Amino acid sequence: MAEELKSLHELLEDDPEIIDNIKVLIEEEAAQSLLTIFADIHSADIAEIINHLDKDKARFAFNILDTETASEVITELDENIREKILEEVNAEKIADIIDELDTDDATDIVSELPDKVAEQVLGYIEPESSEDVKELLKYREDSAGGIMTSDFVHVFEDATIADAIEQVRNKADIIDHIYYIYVTKQNEELIGFILLKSLLLHPLDTKVSTILEEDLISVNPDDDQELVANLMKKYDLVSIPVVDDNGIMLGRITIDDIVDVIGEEAEEDIQKFAGLSEEEEISDSSFKISRIRLPWLFVALFGELISAVVLSSFQASIEKILIASFFIPVVMAMGGSSGTQAAIVMVRRLTEHDIWFSNSYKKIIKEFIVGLFNGLVCGVILIIATHFLFDAEIKFSIALAISLLLIMIFATVVGSTIPLILKKFGADPAVATGPFVTTMNDIFGLSIYLSIITFAFL
Amino acid sequence: MAEELKSLHELLEDDPEIIDNIKVLIEEEAAQSLLTIFADIHSADIAEIINHLDKDKARFAFNILDTETASEVITELDENIREKILEEVNAEKIADIIDELDTDDATDIVSELPDKVAEQVLGYIEPESSEDVKELLKYREDSAGGIMTSDFVHVFEDATIADAIEQVRNKADIIDHIYYIYVTKQNEELIGFILLKSLLLHPLDTKVSTILEEDLISVNPDDDQELVANLMKKYDLVSIPVVDDNGIMLGRITIDDIVDVIGEEAEEDIQKFAGLSEEEEISDSSFKISRIRLPWLFVALFGELISAVVLSSFQASIEKILIASFFIPVVMAMGGSSGTQAAIVMVRRLTEHDIWFSNSYKKIIKEFIVGLFNGLVCGVILIIATHFLFDAEIKFSIALAISLLLIMIFATVVGSTIPLILKKFGADPAVATGPFVTTMNDIFGLSIYLSIITFAFL
Repeated sequence: MAEELKSLHELLEDDPEIIDNIKVLIEEEAAQSLLTIFADIHSADIAEIINHLDKDKARFAFNILDTETASEVITELDENIREKILEEVNAEKIADIIDELDTDDATDIVSELPDKVAEQVLGYIEPESSEDVKELLKYREDSAGGIMTSDFVHVFEDATIADAIEQVRNKADIIDHIYYIYVTKQNEELIGFILLKSLLLHPLDTKVSTILEEDLISVNPDDDQELVANLMKKYDLVSIPVVDDNGIMLGRITIDDIVDVIGEEAEEDIQKFAGLSEEEEISDSSFKISRIRLPWLFVALFGELISAVVLSSFQASIEKILIASFFIPVVMAMGGSSGTQAAIVMVRRLTEHDIWFSNSYKKIIKEFIVGLFNGLVCGVILIIATHFLFDAEIKFSIALAISLLLIMIFATVVGSTIPLILKKFGADPAVATGPFVTTMNDIFGLSIYLSIITFAFL
Repeated sequence: MAEELKSLHELLEDDPEIIDNIKVLIEEEAAQSLLTIFADIHSADIAEIINHLDKDKARFAFNILDTETASEVITELDENIREKILEEVNAEKIADIIDELDTDDATDIVSELPDKVAEQVLGYIEPESSEDVKELLKYREDSAGGIMTSDFVHVFEDATIADAIEQVRNKADIIDHIYYIYVTKQNEELIGFILLKSLLLHPLDTKVSTILEEDLISVNPDDDQELVANLMKKYDLVSIPVVDDNGIMLGRITIDDIVDVIGEEAEEDIQKFAGLSEEEEISDSSFKISRIRLPWLFVALFGELISAVVLSSFQASIEKILIASFFIPVVMAMGGSSGTQAAIVMVRRLTEHDIWFSNSYKKIIKEFIVGLFNGLVCGVILIIATHFLFDAEIKFSIALAISLLLIMIFATVVGSTIPLILKKFGADPAVATGPFVTTMNDIFGLSIYLSIITFAFL
């Protein structure tokens, strides 16, 4: 009977100090006591604890684990912590750990190793896995081929239920979750699948071809993992087969890997909204975080220096109508907010419904109306506010409100159009939501505003 | 043998005009031709097509579907399209459709119906389902209870493999995906599970208690769906049991429902970054979109009016050092960008690693260093740029650079701290990433900047 594991959340409820205790034990290098605690914790939680340790302590905690636990923990570690830990583990031990893994996870780890170590490790692991891993290494990391495993249960079309059960028994040890038994021709061309439960519902001599499900949704190894995620999500799949151009089955991708992808893709978009050049990990140093954030700060800095040039070119107007300078923040923030709202909504639409692309001019007209309406509402509020708060002359208030209206329409339309244009040219539409478009909107917005003020007063 | 279904993506590759053709057929109300096309399309794709139609056409397309297809399509429709379609369907037909659904989906639909219709529908559906649905309606929509289904396979602890197979056969019709057979005491207290594949690996007279897995991670019906998603993601689960405070099993949540939740939670964060008061759906009118976007535009507008008041209070300085007004955009954008970067990173951390909360002062020190470093780099660039681009006197350039440094440190620290404070008080940290904090940063940033300029020159 397996021992009872608890999630870290439950453990913390029982003993709020458990994490501090673990840290003390690691500090003291009390391996035996640590292993006693780790025995009750799920491997994903051991990985989470290691992710929050400094390099040396992380190495110590990882090295005391037995091979099986280490193999469960290693796949859940942050990439840069894993890299630092494996730097000091010899190739033979890495190979032992990798021998316990599914081929997709094994490939991930091998691909991160320095070339020389990777070669050694491939020499040590079981020959069959080694072949599979070398095959999988050919695919891009974020493609269907890069995340598929070559372990799956399959039978030929003339097999019976009894044959299928035999196959399940053969593979039960190396495949944790068996959802489908795939059915192929003799040349391994995929023709359908049967559900695992079906094996319990029919007599043993039933031909699988008679209970075969053919409504197969499959992907090509070169397809992007985002497409795989969208298909599995849309069609509620727990496993999707990967087939080559001739329909030959190469592997399968299971939902647990895709759950991580769904997270990743959303994180990537969020990262672009934030203007981060790559994802920050908890273990990153301050210096690395700076390096991740600086590129887009530079874009904003240079862009706003152009805004400053624009403003300086309207020096005469600002000098004459000093009050105009007070509303620079209003004009910038309202253009920026409307543009970002429109851009983010459009980017998410394009991610989820890319085939409705042809409908997009309708969407832009809708955005124009939204910009017009919101601009009118905000413009009226602005006229009232400037009158009472700043005692501004009505001519200025009206010029300001008209500027705001035009800028909000402009920013809304630009915000929704740029993602479409980027998509059309095969670029990532999410780039439009970062500092680049906001900065561009600032430059144009301020130009519109000061041109109108200049026209009205000079 | 089931017919071969294709995904909409594949159909579009074969015939790029298929969507236009479908629209023409709907226009012409050519029900027979439409059904012929729909027969080859996955129900999720039929739903996607209907989601993109106007109200009347959507109703027409839905009403021609047979009950089984309608039941598959209805769960995939956008909520407001579904509401509009069901307005014109009578309670008896709705009940027929609901009888085909799992209890969790049935509950979702019933909860959206007007009270009177819901009551009628509950009267028409099968008594057992009706009881289950009434039970599930008690839970919050976004709680574990709100997304669980009460259909699951379970046996008592004294059962044999043969008994378990019998249970699978009984439930195979109503449960599409059976991953686990849950094992309970006679009072339905959950004690463990066995994998479906295990039924094929052991003799029929094996007691389930001897092969039971006990490392069960379960949730309470009142737990938030986000917690459920995090647990299933972290521990790679395809199904998670829901138990009450006494350990009695109430239902289970499967990964396909959680995949949607993972999407939803990321979307919700993105929506907050964008300053949207709720999620926009494709079928929303311009007016509704305006209403969704306006609240945060108001926050930005009122906040920036305060910035305008701040600027006007420094009127004397601006008049004297007009060049100071040119750099308002630089100061605002750099504070805004640094603050947003820090806030978004912290919000995502808190979502994924909330138990590491106690480590957070370290994180804030890290942010301080990041703000300091990036502020120094940008400050130096600014001194050089103002010197060459604007021919500014060196005293002004230095005052500007010092302001930028202080503002970037301030914004970075505030951006990472506010999510922590919100979390501490039980509020949603993602609110910190919206226009509210950006606007606040603008007000403080401009005050810091103009105070320093005033101090240096007046």
